Amino acid sequence: MMKAVVFISREKGAEYQADYSHPEVNNPPPGFVKIDLAAAALNKRDDFILKGLYPGIRPNVILGSDGAGLLAGKRVFFNPGINWGKDETVQSINYHILGMPSHGTFASSVLVPRENVFPIPNHLNFIEAAALPLAGLTAFRALFTRGNLKAGEKVLITGGGGGVAQLCIQFAIAKGAHVFSTTGSVDKFEQLESLGVDGVKNYNHHDWEKQLMESYGTFDLVVDSAGGDGFQKLVGLLKPAGRMVIYGGTLGKAHNLSPQIIFWRQLNILGSTMGSPSDFKSMVKFVDDHQIKPVIDSVYPLEDFHAAFERINSGSHFGKIVLRID
Amino acid sequence: MMKAVVFISREKGAEYQADYSHPEVNNPPPGFVKIDLAAAALNKRDDFILKGLYPGIRPNVILGSDGAGLLAGKRVFFNPGINWGKDETVQSINYHILGMPSHGTFASSVLVPRENVFPIPNHLNFIEAAALPLAGLTAFRALFTRGNLKAGEKVLITGGGGGVAQLCIQFAIAKGAHVFSTTGSVDKFEQLESLGVDGVKNYNHHDWEKQLMESYGTFDLVVDSAGGDGFQKLVGLLKPAGRMVIYGGTLGKAHNLSPQIIFWRQLNILGSTMGSPSDFKSMVKFVDDHQIKPVIDSVYPLEDFHAAFERINSGSHFGKIVLRID
Repeated sequence: MMKAVVFISREKGAEYQADYSHPEVNNPPPGFVKIDLAAAALNKRDDFILKGLYPGIRPNVILGSDGAGLLAGKRVFFNPGINWGKDETVQSINYHILGMPSHGTFASSVLVPRENVFPIPNHLNFIEAAALPLAGLTAFRALFTRGNLKAGEKVLITGGGGGVAQLCIQFAIAKGAHVFSTTGSVDKFEQLESLGVDGVKNYNHHDWEKQLMESYGTFDLVVDSAGGDGFQKLVGLLKPAGRMVIYGGTLGKAHNLSPQIIFWRQLNILGSTMGSPSDFKSMVKFVDDHQIKPVIDSVYPLEDFHAAFERINSGSHFGKIVLRID
Repeated sequence: MMKAVVFISREKGAEYQADYSHPEVNNPPPGFVKIDLAAAALNKRDDFILKGLYPGIRPNVILGSDGAGLLAGKRVFFNPGINWGKDETVQSINYHILGMPSHGTFASSVLVPRENVFPIPNHLNFIEAAALPLAGLTAFRALFTRGNLKAGEKVLITGGGGGVAQLCIQFAIAKGAHVFSTTGSVDKFEQLESLGVDGVKNYNHHDWEKQLMESYGTFDLVVDSAGGDGFQKLVGLLKPAGRMVIYGGTLGKAHNLSPQIIFWRQLNILGSTMGSPSDFKSMVKFVDDHQIKPVIDSVYPLEDFHAAFERINSGSHFGKIVLRID
């Protein structure tokens, strides 16, 4: 018997079940361990699932990808990605993330492959550790494995208010890069500057890309998760041989992309999603080496998950929204 | 005193000058050598210059990028790219190609940096050697340096009738890849098949991309020089972790590009143009090792260059159009 937040259906949404009993949770299959959770964090993905905007949705699954807790008395967290496969360049067709279609972390406990589990770096508490895995993995692969960011380079990270983007900013600063960002919310300018960015522009201005170019010049690397009409503008902000990594597409399809800019500048437009087990291991080491703490926006008890989802929907949060599991 | 084809102006085009005297040709500057030309080849670039579609055009310049001839009695040809610079990933801002803005190969002789000059492989005559440099360099960088084509992979080379595309096809087959192509001309199906491609589709069919997918599945690498509406269709034909290299944009801007396909499949869209000195050296060795002969469409005497340009404009040629220089 344990408590959990369970997805029922697109019409009914999710519900908190204080006495939900997870049939497998006391019998981990071979290679899996049971972790007693102390915290879980929200990702946009969880919200997309509630809205029916994710493939492979099925009912009666415990939501949540990110968590931290205890395994045999030790503080642990874990890579929520299962079955990446052997190819570092791309996930296998069996790859999935905890929290749909398999049970996730918005619960008292979760079953995870033993090889996915890592000790929590000493400088992080359970709340901070739970905030890190999926966003940290996505940020690390986008920025380093795919984007090959080097110290001293100039990087533009769009939509700096987002969870992955914030960790990109923190990772890039730790690496010794010059970091710039955009946001649609004037309230977040100061918060982004407090993270240590060298400059921020408001992407709601009609000529944001010209403002970026005039103030900061061109970039070695752009990391974007929006796509849409901004895509070709971002390509135009790249230096010769520059890289653009895209890990999302919230604004939809890209138009007006100039082949001439791409070939003459020898540009690289690179897709990235989640990350491999090797990426996760490297990310945890990087966070430990640089004593990075994810920004926490707010913490809710598990049973108040509806308020947490309202908060992520509001767009006014800055940092991760975490659920405390007692 | 020598003969040459000289660009006069956009209005007047180019003219054949039997007694044109090139002021520098007998006094190579330091590091340059004078090559007595036996053949020169046309590139689309030459035609673009005549049509005013190239940056930096100025009058009284000898046209032509590709050539082959004699240096101190030895058979030589050369890399037409000048001042690439030290960065393998992209050309410097001083990079240019022989034939505009500096004097080119449609003449009795040409001045070339000594380091650009290579012996002609024994299996090639002057006509074939002249047909190779710029197209071979562009094809080699697109296919291998940027596209990282490996033996056993499936590659789609669009517009197989083009000079660069044909060499891409020949290089890819020599590498041991499975090679597919498209063309807009039914006449060229047989010619492409005789080069050794595994399959061809007509890009004028409204559902050419579906035909490719149904007949041949998806591709590890796509090499394209058109862009336009086909761009996003080609992206959709890539396998997970696939690469698309674009080295031209004759059909203009790309639209309807899906960020989701790019990030979820972890795709790579890579621009490529011309090639570095190292690319040229590797290309010459590859051509020698595999005894590759560029396809020759037709040969004209230098003074009949107008007929040669008409031929390249007709679009009905298959292979390179070469000028014989007596």
